[in-house]
This record gives sequence, C-alpha cells and structure tokens, in this order.
Amino acid sequence: MIELPVSTLYGPANLPYGVFSAPGDPHRRIGVAIGDQVLDVAPLADSHGAAELVPLLAGPVLNPLLGAGRRAWTELRERLVEWVHGPADVLRPHLLAAADVQLHLPVEVGDYVDFYSSEHHARNVGQIFRPGSEPLSPNWKHLPIGYHGRTGTIVVSGTDIVRPCGQRRGEDGPEFGPSARLDIEAEVGFVVGTGTRMGEAVAVGDVAEHVFGLFLLNDWSARDIQAWESTPLGPFLGKSFATSVSPWVVPLDALEAARVAPPPRDPPLLPYLRDVDDRGLNLELEVALNGHVVSRPPFATMYWTAAQQLAHLTVNGASLRPGDVFASGTVSGPEKEQRGSLLELSWGGTDPIPLLDDATRTFLEDGDEVTITATAPGTGGIRIGLGEVRGRILPARP
Amino acid sequence: MIELPVSTLYGPANLPYGVFSAPGDPHRRIGVAIGDQVLDVAPLADSHGAAELVPLLAGPVLNPLLGAGRRAWTELRERLVEWVHGPADVLRPHLLAAADVQLHLPVEVGDYVDFYSSEHHARNVGQIFRPGSEPLSPNWKHLPIGYHGRTGTIVVSGTDIVRPCGQRRGEDGPEFGPSARLDIEAEVGFVVGTGTRMGEAVAVGDVAEHVFGLFLLNDWSARDIQAWESTPLGPFLGKSFATSVSPWVVPLDALEAARVAPPPRDPPLLPYLRDVDDRGLNLELEVALNGHVVSRPPFATMYWTAAQQLAHLTVNGASLRPGDVFASGTVSGPEKEQRGSLLELSWGGTDPIPLLDDATRTFLEDGDEVTITATAPGTGGIRIGLGEVRGRILPARP
Repeated sequence: MIELPVSTLYGPANLPYGVFSAPGDPHRRIGVAIGDQVLDVAPLADSHGAAELVPLLAGPVLNPLLGAGRRAWTELRERLVEWVHGPADVLRPHLLAAADVQLHLPVEVGDYVDFYSSEHHARNVGQIFRPGSEPLSPNWKHLPIGYHGRTGTIVVSGTDIVRPCGQRRGEDGPEFGPSARLDIEAEVGFVVGTGTRMGEAVAVGDVAEHVFGLFLLNDWSARDIQAWESTPLGPFLGKSFATSVSPWVVPLDALEAARVAPPPRDPPLLPYLRDVDDRGLNLELEVALNGHVVSRPPFATMYWTAAQQLAHLTVNGASLRPGDVFASGTVSGPEKEQRGSLLELSWGGTDPIPLLDDATRTFLEDGDEVTITATAPGTGGIRIGLGEVRGRILPARP
Repeated sequence: MIELPVSTLYGPANLPYGVFSAPGDPHRRIGVAIGDQVLDVAPLADSHGAAELVPLLAGPVLNPLLGAGRRAWTELRERLVEWVHGPADVLRPHLLAAADVQLHLPVEVGDYVDFYSSEHHARNVGQIFRPGSEPLSPNWKHLPIGYHGRTGTIVVSGTDIVRPCGQRRGEDGPEFGPSARLDIEAEVGFVVGTGTRMGEAVAVGDVAEHVFGLFLLNDWSARDIQAWESTPLGPFLGKSFATSVSPWVVPLDALEAARVAPPPRDPPLLPYLRDVDDRGLNLELEVALNGHVVSRPPFATMYWTAAQQLAHLTVNGASLRPGDVFASGTVSGPEKEQRGSLLELSWGGTDPIPLLDDATRTFLEDGDEVTITATAPGTGGIRIGLGEVRGRILPARP
C-alpha cells in the first residue's frame, strides 16, 4: 500500500472525487484525493480491469459518473479501495502531487436550491431583522424553506469574488453602490446523482439512491442589497453574484460513520417528511477570516436533513438531473461562536468580531479572505476531510 | 418566391427559430417557421454559400447560434430573407409541413429568472392577498423584482402538466394533497444570446447585444402551495413543478415595428435603470381556456422592460450564459378582461370566470387545456405571430 502522511484527512476511508488539470495541460480529468496526492482515475481503471468505468471518468466534470447511479458508484468505490490497499506500484504512475495540480468546478450544475434549515440561524436572522416579533415564520417547522439560486455563478474554491454593486435602502430613497454589508454563509451542498422524471417524487428513505455526495459551499450574501429587494419574492441580486464550492465531492458512502439523529421534531411532520432513519450528519465546520478562526458551526444541529430536503424538493413532481445541487442553508449552532454568518456573529453589525492584532470586522472588507473547512468521523475511527472553500474579496468594479 | 398562405403570421417579416424532428427520425434540427411549413436551415445554408453558418445550426438546441453573437444573428437573418424572397426551387427541398414535424424545447436553459414587472398584476395580487393595505411593496417602482426559477422543469408547448401535490395551510395546521388552486401566468420569456463574464454588468442600452429573441411562457402556479411556503424566501414548490414555453423563438430583429414607449416612470429611476430608447413591446397576448378566450393581456402596459430587467439582473456582476432565460412576470392590463392569471380573473376564487356552455372556473380542473398565443406588428404593416404555448392538466399522481 502507498504511504500516506500521518493523520491525513484523505485516507482510504474518504476517497473524494474532483476535477483537476496538470501543469501545462488544459485537459480536465477526474481525480481522487489520497493523502497529499491526486489519483488520475481513468487511466488506472483502464489499465487495471475496470475499462467499463472509463466512460464515466472522462471529464471534464463528474456528471457522467453522477448519472450512472448507485451501482456504478459502489463498484467504482470498491475498486478504488482495492487499488489503494494494493501494491504501491499500481497507483504510483497515476499519482500527482496535489500542490501541483489545478482543481476545477467538479460538477456542471443543473439546478441549485438553497435551503434555510438551521433553526439557530433562522432564529438569529429573525431576531436581528424583526426584533420583538416571533423569529420563525409559521411554516418553518412544517417544511424545509428553500428557494432557487443562480447556477451560472457557482465557482470553485480559490476564485476571487468581486464586491457586488446594487440598490439598497437609503435615507432619502434607494441608493446605488458597492455593497457595504458583504457576508458569507457557511453551508454544505448536496450533489444529486441519479435523476428523476417530472411527476415523480423521491421518498424520504430513498435519499442515498439519488444523492451522490457533498461539498462545502459559501453562499456569499450582500445583506444591504438582499434586505431591500427581498419583499415579496425572496433573495435575488443579494445572492446571485457568486457562490463558491469546495473542489472535492465526498461520497455519501464515506460518511456512514458521521450519521447521527437529527434534533427532535416538534410539531410532528406530515408523512412525506417523516424520517425513516438517521440522516443527520456530524460534520464539524470551521470558518476562518484572514486565517483567524471565527466560528465552528456544528452540522449535527441542523433541523432538516438532506433526506427531508430532497423529499420536499420533489414532492410536487419537480424532476432532478445529475449535477443538481441543493444546499443546507447557513449552518449555525446554539452558541455564539458556532454561527455561520458574519450577520449573526456581529449581530447585524452591532457587535464587531475580534480578529488578530486588534483588528475587528462586522462585514467583509476588500482583500479579506474567507476559508471554510470541515471534517467528519470516518469508518475505523479515522477522521476524514471535506476540504476547503476559500475566496478573497476584490474591490467593486467602477 | 414561395407561396405563403394569405394573412400568415409567419411571413418573411417573422422568421422565428425552433428545433424540430421529422417523422421517424429522432434527429433534432434547427428550423425556421415560414407560412405553414418548417425550413430545415442547416442543409440549405450548407448548399447555398453559407457553410460557415452550419456549425451554429447543428442542433439539438439553439445554444450554439445564441452564443455566436449579434453579427452572426444578423448575417443568418439576412441570408434567410434572401432565400425566402428568392426562387421557390431553392427552398422547396428543405421545407416540411409544420403539421408533420414534432417541435422540441428550443433552448438548453442555463439560468431562469422570473420577474414581476406588470404594475396591474402586482396591484391585483397585493389587493387579493392583503386587502386594505398598500398593494405594491416599497421597492416595486425602484427595481424590477425577480427571483430564480427551476430550469429542469421547463418544457415545450404541448407537454401535459401533472397537477402538483404539496403542503398548504389548513384549518388545523398544514395539510398535504393535490393543489386545489392550480393557475397559469401568461408571460413573455426573453432568451439570452451573448453571455458575459462574472463582474460585468450589461448597460440598459445594450440589451440587443445580449438578447436574441423571445417566446411565450406559462408559469404554472399552485397558489395554495405558494401562499403557505413563500414567507420569507419567496416562491418555490408552488412554481417549480413546470414552466411551459412556446417552441418558436422570435428574434428581436423581427420586433422593431413592435417597439413602443413603456409607461411613464414615476418616481425617477437610478441611472443604471434609466431607459435610453423605447424598449416596450406592443405584443398582444390571448389566453384561452378549453378553447374559450378568457383574457387579452397587452404587453405594452408592462412597467419594466426587458432592457431594464437585464441591466438589473447583471448590475451585481452576475454573469450570463447563452440560453439563459428571463421572463416578464404575469402580463396583466388595466381592464378585467386583460388579466394574465386565473387568480386575478376570478379575484382570488371569489368571482368565477364564465366559459362556454354555462361552465365556469375559478382555478384549473383536471383535463383543462390552456393556450396562450400572441401577435405583434411586423415590418411593412404585416402582423407576425409568436406561436402558442399550450398545456393540459393531468390528475395528480397518487
């Protein structure tokens, strides 16, 4: 077996998929992260008795593999485990140093739905925007609230984010200019594999048939633009300028040891949303601003699970395509230092967040860099990593 | 010149693009509607000195042509006008009877934004849902309100629509079942051609550089599902089950004679939304329910134009891709018989709409068929047609 760095988060229990290109070669290929290396999967499969899998690994995105369905996913993962545990000579010709390759957006996204599934987040936002009134809307505990986001501005980790301009409320009517309340939302995005036809609903127990895996997602948000535009049809330009995702898609199969019971549901749910098994996930997120950790959001506290989100999303007969993405919404835990947005961490800008060297922030300044990372329990007691989603703020264009 | 039916809406002033397949041949090809025939464009271009245009006409969708940009669109349209006015022998080998071909979804849609740009519609909806309070939200006259819709459930005219199931408000908490308030929204959809990069905004005067053309759109809406889910993030499952579009994309170039001044804007707009020329369009829509005309919505009454919608949609730096679609929102005029939704026509279900043979409707029943058509002034005083978007309601799946 190949040697792996001690305490790597990319051991044989993880094996996440991504899309990479090697230096001087624009060809986008499917890779698997192992230790601090990237495995070029297609040629390995081709030369080691898995030629039937090669068409699914042709790139330039994971979509053919996503659309191939659970049986193909399981078969490929079993072969990968075999190869990784086998003689190092088999793997070695197909390994590249992760530091040398460029990682790309792993998925061509069809539709992107963003949910709002952390009760702590929804309560915080409600209290900040409507102090004194009930923070949760009457529907919140009956269905996972969600809306469609823009897919054409989903970018891979490392892409710079230009500060958006737009309208906001001013003292004498609306004003136009660069957003003054630019924020992040630390989220987990679920990547759909097997699609459905229009008119079909996915049962809450069938999530693993349709969801391939997950990545981290930063739903950049311009709070001043969002606040002015969102009545009555919801967020639009306050979100649509950019959404960043981490490059490695961790398969659901790698997260069996991370499954936990979601929080108790009260009031009881309509039958189509009732949990059939534990589909909460014990992912531990970490948000760093300019290298300083400002929050550790616990995904296990999410009220609605991916299984419930998918059942809800399709209960009206809306079809799924391989490459669709649905995201959790901001992950915020019950504690102050577990909040997944600056809006919450600075309580609407009233309570600056301490950084290093006496610096503070309410919202993002030009040049700021945000990095969201996460880990989870893997099989065999070894932690696995979800990688990182990172982005730096560039000044608004004149 | 080929002979055309008297008073055809598809004369040489129109020349809309679509995607068709011939009987017994699944190959999807680009067609142009002429009279009651469809012109198979690619082989004609190939054999008549326009081989350079053939790659743009390869199908199975219009996207390569959309992405080729205005110069290519103009060149192709000039050649089409030439061929249509030339000897009938040139065209004849490439013409198929429209009745014999199957029409398909003409565009692979990247992102779909639905606006809310009719003041009459917004006022009606406000009065129906919030009687006694101000019907327009404070932002309505300052920016075109919009939100992202689902692209994977956009279907071509003629596709049956399964009645969606979902949650709605009940007397003792939420209930689940088939929507009891299934509705239509008569809209016009604009098809984006030339894309942009992230961080770029499209100026309000540059709409014709980026918009290729338009089609009709029926934004099917389940009002009971929508009413319960939409706070605080907007419509989701009440809309995402299906959106139907007409098969022929009418180029903006065919609509020069339809341009009119939009309604006066009061209060004045921020500079990025100020009209630079008349971009209202004098399209006359007609809505028929089971063959009986129930409404004639006038598009010329729309408060926000496509130019303003596109400028707004991109002002935050959101990028465009060829095949993106943005829709007008329900087209409703000032008169009762000009309303573009059953919600308005039946005033929230309180005032049934008379049909033929003493039948009435508030919302759609199973088996109902809705057809939206439209015409516009074309050059030379000859009216042109936008075709139709049609759909029949199938019962909910058990």
